[in-house]
Amino acid sequence: MKFTAQQIAELLKGSVEGNPQAEVNGLSKIEEGKPGTLSFLANPKYNEYIYTTKASIVIVNSTFEAESPVEATLIRVADAYKSFASLLEIYNQIVNDKKGIEQPSFVDPSATIGKDVYIGAFAYIGKNSVIGDGVKIYPQCYVGDNVVIKDNTTLFAGCRVYSFCQIGKECNLHAGVIIGADGFGFAPNEQNNYKKVPQIGNVIIEDHVEVGAGTTIDRATLGSTIIRKGVKLDNLIQIAHNVEIGENTVIAAQTGVAGSTKIGKNCMIGGQVGIVGHLSIANGVKIAAQSGIGTSITTEGEIVQGSPAFNISDYKRTYVVFKKLPQLERKINEIEKTQVNKTAE
Amino acid sequence: MKFTAQQIAELLKGSVEGNPQAEVNGLSKIEEGKPGTLSFLANPKYNEYIYTTKASIVIVNSTFEAESPVEATLIRVADAYKSFASLLEIYNQIVNDKKGIEQPSFVDPSATIGKDVYIGAFAYIGKNSVIGDGVKIYPQCYVGDNVVIKDNTTLFAGCRVYSFCQIGKECNLHAGVIIGADGFGFAPNEQNNYKKVPQIGNVIIEDHVEVGAGTTIDRATLGSTIIRKGVKLDNLIQIAHNVEIGENTVIAAQTGVAGSTKIGKNCMIGGQVGIVGHLSIANGVKIAAQSGIGTSITTEGEIVQGSPAFNISDYKRTYVVFKKLPQLERKINEIEKTQVNKTAE
Amino acid sequence: MKFTAQQIAELLKGSVEGNPQAEVNGLSKIEEGKPGTLSFLANPKYNEYIYTTKASIVIVNSTFEAESPVEATLIRVADAYKSFASLLEIYNQIVNDKKGIEQPSFVDPSATIGKDVYIGAFAYIGKNSVIGDGVKIYPQCYVGDNVVIKDNTTLFAGCRVYSFCQIGKECNLHAGVIIGADGFGFAPNEQNNYKKVPQIGNVIIEDHVEVGAGTTIDRATLGSTIIRKGVKLDNLIQIAHNVEIGENTVIAAQTGVAGSTKIGKNCMIGGQVGIVGHLSIANGVKIAAQSGIGTSITTEGEIVQGSPAFNISDYKRTYVVFKKLPQLERKINEIEKTQVNKTAE
Repeated sequence: MKFTAQQIAELLKGSVEGNPQAEVNGLSKIEEGKPGTLSFLANPKYNEYIYTTKASIVIVNSTFEAESPVEATLIRVADAYKSFASLLEIYNQIVNDKKGIEQPSFVDPSATIGKDVYIGAFAYIGKNSVIGDGVKIYPQCYVGDNVVIKDNTTLFAGCRVYSFCQIGKECNLHAGVIIGADGFGFAPNEQNNYKKVPQIGNVIIEDHVEVGAGTTIDRATLGSTIIRKGVKLDNLIQIAHNVEIGENTVIAAQTGVAGSTKIGKNCMIGGQVGIVGHLSIANGVKIAAQSGIGTSITTEGEIVQGSPAFNISDYKRTYVVFKKLPQLERKINEIEKTQVNKTAE
Repeated sequence: MKFTAQQIAELLKGSVEGNPQAEVNGLSKIEEGKPGTLSFLANPKYNEYIYTTKASIVIVNSTFEAESPVEATLIRVADAYKSFASLLEIYNQIVNDKKGIEQPSFVDPSATIGKDVYIGAFAYIGKNSVIGDGVKIYPQCYVGDNVVIKDNTTLFAGCRVYSFCQIGKECNLHAGVIIGADGFGFAPNEQNNYKKVPQIGNVIIEDHVEVGAGTTIDRATLGSTIIRKGVKLDNLIQIAHNVEIGENTVIAAQTGVAGSTKIGKNCMIGGQVGIVGHLSIANGVKIAAQSGIGTSITTEGEIVQGSPAFNISDYKRTYVVFKKLPQLERKINEIEKTQVNKTAE
Repeated sequence: MKFTAQQIAELLKGSVEGNPQAEVNGLSKIEEGKPGTLSFLANPKYNEYIYTTKASIVIVNSTFEAESPVEATLIRVADAYKSFASLLEIYNQIVNDKKGIEQPSFVDPSATIGKDVYIGAFAYIGKNSVIGDGVKIYPQCYVGDNVVIKDNTTLFAGCRVYSFCQIGKECNLHAGVIIGADGFGFAPNEQNNYKKVPQIGNVIIEDHVEVGAGTTIDRATLGSTIIRKGVKLDNLIQIAHNVEIGENTVIAAQTGVAGSTKIGKNCMIGGQVGIVGHLSIANGVKIAAQSGIGTSITTEGEIVQGSPAFNISDYKRTYVVFKKLPQLERKINEIEKTQVNKTAE
């Protein structure tokens, strides 16, 4: 897809300065601009690059004043950053604009399929499942029996949604996401080995949730594992059975949350954090990367670090001393020696 | 599927109290009971909920005595918890009762397929592979060449089993499990880059093993990576080449075990633990979550924590002092000052 | 496939001692040798096993002198280890020698497919994608639109490569690898929830790269996430958007690298390491397993440990004192008591 400066300017309600027929078919950062790409300049810190960039078209603020000749065609708009961001979205929509049902795919006759859906080749839709309008199910996805996927949600290639799970509207589930596998529940039996506890609950994901590649969310033993509206999960996260994650909470990659823990709203949880089961985390809590949470956090907005974690300022102060431990030990030994000597005097 | 109180009572050899035609099509916790669901009351702590629950049917102990009117239909049995648990299993079996070969699927003509198997659409069975009786291979699974999968094992959607690997009886491999990818073996060469060491061993998984979603178990360089009878692995675990895990050992999510390490029987290993390669872990060892194991553990039943890990009681005592380090440092400085002053007197 | 001692000796230019018709169809370690397998003896430490091994054929150095009768057929070569290693490679090539296009598969008519490729059943190749000569795409792989995969690269079962990504020559991507899912980028909006930042860059993987099972590499927000020549990534690693990893760097399992971080050449990074975003790691740096990197490392060849990490020798010394903290505290308390007593005298 190629676009001219003229076309882009019309889209953004901007004005062209230079060649209105200049063409682009990609995007670039201004400092790495290549011919045939479109870039933008919003932050004055990057002004210098506009004189050297190879980008064919650059979107600039209407207030921008060039101090030397500029080779690129400029498009002047009220807010260069916002205009560029809206272009990104348009571009993204064009690139991901998939529709129709590719063959071979497997749609059980009892399933209900909405309007304007995309079902990629080798995708599987099980019995009685309901797929909303505008849903995109990329190739090789698995949707089990009795699943509900609401309007405008996208499942990228190779997502798996086990039976009876529910996904809200306008969610993105990236490749390799697994929703509703069995929770990890076993009861020791008389022979000193483990008997599986049947996991017959489900997973409910509300609207506007993003789930990163390879993340796994287990079904509840009974009831539901719940991911509330607006939650954003990064890649390779593990959410165990019966967990609940509150609205707009954000969790970075490779974090694990053990069974039945309830996390509040608007929390920010770093990468590689581990949270023990059956805890409760208050709203607005922030947890530093690699921390281990072994007890509930009841104070809203608390910020913690460490394994086990405690208040982040205390942790940082403590870690400063931790790094000095060898010299601290030497000092103690010297004090002790001096004292012994004095006592012996 | 709907069931009446009468049908369930017959199944459980219990007696109905209330409407024998009350119908349910789902299960719930008593405190969250909804109309049309079945619940149970076993622990007297939850007695209060039976008077307010919206569940249509509740299974109770035959000894239960109501102190106020109960709206739900009751089913009285000798042991409410056991009866409910057995219902869960029956329910689970019904929900997962898949049979037959869906099309399109790919079964190499040289493969041997047992009786009563399920092979989902888009599943792939390679050359000379042997699939036992009652095996369920969900859609989009990959079974390479010369693989053996024994009776009554289930591979959920999108499992991958590389060539020459063997899976025992009555195992569950959840979605996205990868068995037998190459071990991570490279030898530096003259040009200071790495040459791959061919990984031509396999993985052997014995009977009654559970492998959680997204877990990866690498094939041996030579010989076998072995997962013994009754081992339970949670989600997103990494088991490297030539590792051996002893009977009935349980490992929580996101733990990693490096190459050639041998783990004993009946161990319990927490989440996000890292175990270095070429170690040996004794039987019955317990490892706290997020610990790092850098040396072999030779004492049976030892319990450890920390990174690097040591005895858990010692670790906990040490961590108490760690959290006080800033005040400890202040104290040392004061002692030193006092001593210097006294010496100067 | 069966081979006789005679055939193997011809391949290795060695001489047979024993039965030239002895047959093998597998490989084993000498101490675990089974009938019908081929083994080797290179390290004199293992000499004893040659008298008891059940392996049918053993490759030995031409200088080897037996001190007792040996049952196995021997093949004498100049360097037993090298000969065995080259056999492994040949064996591996035979086992993985897949060719042709299995059906059903999905290849968009606009895609360009090279010579001698393998495309497994249920694989998907999107619009305008270019697949080089000798490429192997195992069953159930997903290759999006406008993807380039260069010569002799292998994608094992169920890999996903999102649109616009590029994979170099002679790479191996193991099962479940996900290349090019959206980076984790969200901007808070007025309603205190998050708006997705479109992720429209790509991933570029250069030649001779190995990516382990289940590893995820996110596309750049703008520009490219870059994995340089010869990089080796183990399983379940997370590489975030806009990261760059330098030539021949090796990363062990379950490590995570956050957005926009640049890692140098020839680094060695242990398992379960976490690296914060927007950092720069110098060439040749080594990072111990489970470390957390919160600031850039500018010294080439630096070796670090800890979370947050610092120099590994300092860390080890510090950890020795850490383990003694309870006794150190007791000592301080005693010193203080003595001092108070003396002052009070």
